Amino acid sequence: MSGVQGGPARQQRVGVHRIACSGPGDLSGVQALVDAGTLVPADIVAVMGKTEGNGCVNDHTREYASMAWSQLLAPHLGCTPAQAAQRVALVMSGGTEGVLSPHFTVFTRRWLEGVAPRAEGAPRLVIGTAHTRDFAPHELGRMPQIEATAQAVRAAMAEAGIQRVQDVHFVQVKCPLLTSARVQQALAEGHEPRTRDTYESMGYSRGASALGVALALDEVPADRVDDAAVLRDWSLFSGRASASAGIELDHNVVIVLGEAAGAASPYRIAHTVMRDAVDAAAVRTLLRERFDLDMDRDTDPDAGRLVNLLAKAEASPDGLVRGQRHTMLNDSDINATRHARAAVGGVLASIAGHSALYVSGGAEHQGPAGGGPVAAILQLKDAA
Amino acid sequence: MSGVQGGPARQQRVGVHRIACSGPGDLSGVQALVDAGTLVPADIVAVMGKTEGNGCVNDHTREYASMAWSQLLAPHLGCTPAQAAQRVALVMSGGTEGVLSPHFTVFTRRWLEGVAPRAEGAPRLVIGTAHTRDFAPHELGRMPQIEATAQAVRAAMAEAGIQRVQDVHFVQVKCPLLTSARVQQALAEGHEPRTRDTYESMGYSRGASALGVALALDEVPADRVDDAAVLRDWSLFSGRASASAGIELDHNVVIVLGEAAGAASPYRIAHTVMRDAVDAAAVRTLLRERFDLDMDRDTDPDAGRLVNLLAKAEASPDGLVRGQRHTMLNDSDINATRHARAAVGGVLASIAGHSALYVSGGAEHQGPAGGGPVAAILQLKDAA
Amino acid sequence: MSGVQGGPARQQRVGVHRIACSGPGDLSGVQALVDAGTLVPADIVAVMGKTEGNGCVNDHTREYASMAWSQLLAPHLGCTPAQAAQRVALVMSGGTEGVLSPHFTVFTRRWLEGVAPRAEGAPRLVIGTAHTRDFAPHELGRMPQIEATAQAVRAAMAEAGIQRVQDVHFVQVKCPLLTSARVQQALAEGHEPRTRDTYESMGYSRGASALGVALALDEVPADRVDDAAVLRDWSLFSGRASASAGIELDHNVVIVLGEAAGAASPYRIAHTVMRDAVDAAAVRTLLRERFDLDMDRDTDPDAGRLVNLLAKAEASPDGLVRGQRHTMLNDSDINATRHARAAVGGVLASIAGHSALYVSGGAEHQGPAGGGPVAAILQLKDAA
Amino acid sequence: MSGVQGGPARQQRVGVHRIACSGPGDLSGVQALVDAGTLVPADIVAVMGKTEGNGCVNDHTREYASMAWSQLLAPHLGCTPAQAAQRVALVMSGGTEGVLSPHFTVFTRRWLEGVAPRAEGAPRLVIGTAHTRDFAPHELGRMPQIEATAQAVRAAMAEAGIQRVQDVHFVQVKCPLLTSARVQQALAEGHEPRTRDTYESMGYSRGASALGVALALDEVPADRVDDAAVLRDWSLFSGRASASAGIELDHNVVIVLGEAAGAASPYRIAHTVMRDAVDAAAVRTLLRERFDLDMDRDTDPDAGRLVNLLAKAEASPDGLVRGQRHTMLNDSDINATRHARAAVGGVLASIAGHSALYVSGGAEHQGPAGGGPVAAILQLKDAA
Repeated sequence: MSGVQGGPARQQRVGVHRIACSGPGDLSGVQALVDAGTLVPADIVAVMGKTEGNGCVNDHTREYASMAWSQLLAPHLGCTPAQAAQRVALVMSGGTEGVLSPHFTVFTRRWLEGVAPRAEGAPRLVIGTAHTRDFAPHELGRMPQIEATAQAVRAAMAEAGIQRVQDVHFVQVKCPLLTSARVQQALAEGHEPRTRDTYESMGYSRGASALGVALALDEVPADRVDDAAVLRDWSLFSGRASASAGIELDHNVVIVLGEAAGAASPYRIAHTVMRDAVDAAAVRTLLRERFDLDMDRDTDPDAGRLVNLLAKAEASPDGLVRGQRHTMLNDSDINATRHARAAVGGVLASIAGHSALYVSGGAEHQGPAGGGPVAAILQLKDAA
Repeated sequence: MSGVQGGPARQQRVGVHRIACSGPGDLSGVQALVDAGTLVPADIVAVMGKTEGNGCVNDHTREYASMAWSQLLAPHLGCTPAQAAQRVALVMSGGTEGVLSPHFTVFTRRWLEGVAPRAEGAPRLVIGTAHTRDFAPHELGRMPQIEATAQAVRAAMAEAGIQRVQDVHFVQVKCPLLTSARVQQALAEGHEPRTRDTYESMGYSRGASALGVALALDEVPADRVDDAAVLRDWSLFSGRASASAGIELDHNVVIVLGEAAGAASPYRIAHTVMRDAVDAAAVRTLLRERFDLDMDRDTDPDAGRLVNLLAKAEASPDGLVRGQRHTMLNDSDINATRHARAAVGGVLASIAGHSALYVSGGAEHQGPAGGGPVAAILQLKDAA
Repeated sequence: MSGVQGGPARQQRVGVHRIACSGPGDLSGVQALVDAGTLVPADIVAVMGKTEGNGCVNDHTREYASMAWSQLLAPHLGCTPAQAAQRVALVMSGGTEGVLSPHFTVFTRRWLEGVAPRAEGAPRLVIGTAHTRDFAPHELGRMPQIEATAQAVRAAMAEAGIQRVQDVHFVQVKCPLLTSARVQQALAEGHEPRTRDTYESMGYSRGASALGVALALDEVPADRVDDAAVLRDWSLFSGRASASAGIELDHNVVIVLGEAAGAASPYRIAHTVMRDAVDAAAVRTLLRERFDLDMDRDTDPDAGRLVNLLAKAEASPDGLVRGQRHTMLNDSDINATRHARAAVGGVLASIAGHSALYVSGGAEHQGPAGGGPVAAILQLKDAA
Repeated sequence: MSGVQGGPARQQRVGVHRIACSGPGDLSGVQALVDAGTLVPADIVAVMGKTEGNGCVNDHTREYASMAWSQLLAPHLGCTPAQAAQRVALVMSGGTEGVLSPHFTVFTRRWLEGVAPRAEGAPRLVIGTAHTRDFAPHELGRMPQIEATAQAVRAAMAEAGIQRVQDVHFVQVKCPLLTSARVQQALAEGHEPRTRDTYESMGYSRGASALGVALALDEVPADRVDDAAVLRDWSLFSGRASASAGIELDHNVVIVLGEAAGAASPYRIAHTVMRDAVDAAAVRTLLRERFDLDMDRDTDPDAGRLVNLLAKAEASPDGLVRGQRHTMLNDSDINATRHARAAVGGVLASIAGHSALYVSGGAEHQGPAGGGPVAAILQLKDAA
């Protein structure tokens, strides 16, 4: 983290690689880039993966992918796999319903020393990461998780070299969930967990994490955020938070993506908010107005420069989409997050022209009820 | 059917009502229209419903809705519920994954006698229905089903008053599936069914039905259609067929939707083919070029005139969408048809601006592999 | 109901028919018995069905079966289908996972007038039914539902002619659940529902209903039963309650099964409590000690006289079965009630020698945590 | 393998450890035994795991557990993880539906040199392993897989020191399945795979593997086994084969468990065949007659010596259990293998008194249609 305070001759250069896989444990595509020298493992600061599990409680594809990544990274970082998982922010989001295609988005960062800063100082992609302490099971979905997350977001912003909250365009949080065993642990310790339902705990954990992001980014008044607001007061939300719950960790991991003037990265990032699950217009407008990409036509020659869309999806809690009933919340065969990812994944793939998109389910306090934040990463034409 | 041959003073006037429901057996919205005199039960010729089951073998919401419809219709038609189900083409398609909203699209038809035909003779929506004989279990997915379907399509065209195959824009087929009991029946009769897997039988039945439509519409060379081609030769397909398999019948029901010059219906219909599950461009182009609707903007004042989109969705059998791997065909928790409906439903709802769309799963030989036909029904401005 | 107070010359004769079906709407087996004169529709007081849905929120097979039954009964009762559903207790329990076989258990009752009571006065099967008022959504899972259920149990006991609580052997309750729409209704009315999760609401509704039964049968101290105890204090339970939640009603329906001396029914009933999901020993002991049936051997000539087992199944809330971890509560693909029915259904079928058993999921406060009540109905040898 | 032919002074001593886990990647229980010196990694010859995935195509818990095991073993074996997976037979069977508890059964083998053979020569547990070559996708479910499996069984018998086929009590086979990619590979190579349905391919692979075992054990006439018999002629089956299909390998792995006189293992093994999914009587008879265990009572002091039951479960292909309809094969929400494991797991746990049992789904040609083989491993009282 200390590098952020470096003098003017030090520039951050972020790289982004979107890499397909044939399964949660398949890093052959990653290895090929490493072998070719295109990807330097020691530069990797974060990995955001879409794995092909159910994205719910018993989705072990996330921890499986994390284990594979830890083992790939360990020898390059000169540490154990467990230590590698601490140093690099590994965020695996389960669920590639519908057309979504499993993949990893790998973020590298290198500090260019002794290089003159880019003269014009136009904003470029920067990244920072942080993590919270471990949470006790009963803290999930409550103020301790909210506050610790806010603190981690601020730390990650500082590490990224972002001063202004408006320069933050996406905050990815990986957060824990309650298993049956963790519920029992809380009860044995004399605490009532926020919920005893394991699937429901994912929503509480995501919701509290998102409110933490909203607090850190000044998107909500601090005095309205309390235990009772979580999953109740939908007027409180972050337009940039993306939280994924998983069985594989007990703390929150935070990745801040934003822009900083003078950074040397050949990428830009921007964001918008879908007001509901079918709000394609918001995303097309974002791409057109911020990146000059007209994705209405399949033929835009620059379409390939759109590296990824990072989005949250959810079933509208009022049971309606544009005034018409949906059935996602009453479906006991397929959880609502799976439905939502499939639908939003289809919408976004029809815009982006490809389906290896980071669409994560469960957007509690992430965008308005039923909608969600979307960030777009663009590779600049002059990128080497 | 004899009415079709009527003289010039007889015109067909088709009405279309899209009616929401709160469950498969809820016809209160229908009843309200009947009570208001807006919908005359005796005029109903076809109902295409989206019900909220899984759309697969054990989806009993289709037969439940059919039972409810039969009972609503019977007293109005002066017959038993079972007879009502024979007279009116009741096609229930299960599965409202993602944002899709359960609803019924009701087609009425009235013959206007002694009325001067519309002078200009511009094409307007017409409808015709027919059904095949019952099939033996082993006939499903094979030539007997293909040929009987083709014959029924021709009969329904004649009933609709459509002479040219190019005036057919959508052919909905409801077809049987194999249950465990039907598989055993076939074996007991000394026949090997096309497949012993009940879920898989739905694909064979849909595929054979679609090839029957393609035959009738001259979309495929007759000499290339045989048992071996079903679910094998993906180059053979209909651009207008939509087949849904269901547990509730043993024969095929066929609904032909098209246009005929001089018809008195205040509706038009047009169709296109999505080349893959995320081909929003094809549908937007159709709406713009044929109906002058620009659905890119949410603000098109005429958007409300788009009554419905009728579409087929499927997981591309090669496991790829635009060159990237999808996981639908390897998912043993959620069947591929459910994934596909969710994704395509999202894409189409993001275009249509509403989610009560008829998106049906399993597009074998319905459009190219991985894609599918889409028809759009537009209410004309001058409609009473 | 007034008949219960009748003089000594009036005897209750209960009949029990277990009838297979080929689907939720198939009453052909019932109709055959009616046609043969074996089953008199006007005598039917209760139907307990196992239908082949998921047994969870969006299981429409229950209401589909209820609709079919209402329509079969209506002409025989000289009323509308809706009225028939009020007069006869129709309890459909969804879910025939594993080996369980869909079927209906039909209870008839006839009052024999002017017949001398059986001299010995040995206890025989009797039945009584009652129902509560409709509940507001926010009342589910709380004291209003508990108290109304207790009151209905007492009314049903009186109707059955049972004076002592120890003569009650099974109390079946059908209770409502919260759908997405009902949750919204509660919120719009200014009430926080007990839970906003639709699947979870089933557990609360069952749990409160079971506590109501326990109250009526003096199985729990009244001063320990309150809102906070529901789904929390597992030491409170009924050894005879069986509650099933369904989307098709807004009130509780109660069926009391027990014994009364002098009744003329050719059936007996007894009950036990399985202490966990694999407690076959309890059931075998019950059958041996109460009915002299040794079901260890397949060859007991009297095995066929065991009409049905009525049982509740649940995933142990502590995540363990006999000290070993189970995964039912962490499974986001298959709900825990489905797992539990499959497992307990296997256990009981291996005892009963057949699989058309009434095994219902979700045993909150029905038997000890992880276990559940089981009742057995035996046809007497001297039955006509 | 050559050691089997060793002289009289060489004895095989097999150890069996059943070890619980908290997830597919949790080997902490294994590590604890290793640390305590109770389990020597270099002695491990086979691991049969039950992991908590869906046991179907996209069950990645199997490969995840295999990866964890490979990494635990590698340093102890002085090889790479990939080599460890070749040396030790790692068979992971997914699916712990119902009460089943995830666990690993670890088999060790040590050759005692220069020790006098046990005088009495009573039979004791022995084990042997082997594997086939990799199969091309189109070979699955056909004669090449059948014949290669038979050959591997004979090799494993030889390695185990078993001369007579009647001394073989259980043959575990792990076999490949077809993914969407492998189907495409077969087609690209000009071969029609046995099926294009990925879930269905599991059944064909298991069925062919089981017929290979039956061939090797002289349970079926060689001239009746051909491609057409697979999944068609249910009269052909092995009473001792257990085959599990998985995504993580391209060849068959075979583990033979049996008895040999003079072996030094403190364990015995015996087997029976359940004639259907609820045939508890067969298993209780086996335990009573072969092992003198009366499991009817929970109180048998020797119950703890029953190390594990190894069993196969399947939905009866005729759709019936003891003459009554089951719904497993028509269920499009839960695959039939999952239903079957849940039901049979319940039955066996109610006998064994614990739920960490090896129950594997899909018993094609493994036992009679609808039934399956069961082996029991007993620890002898005199075991050190």
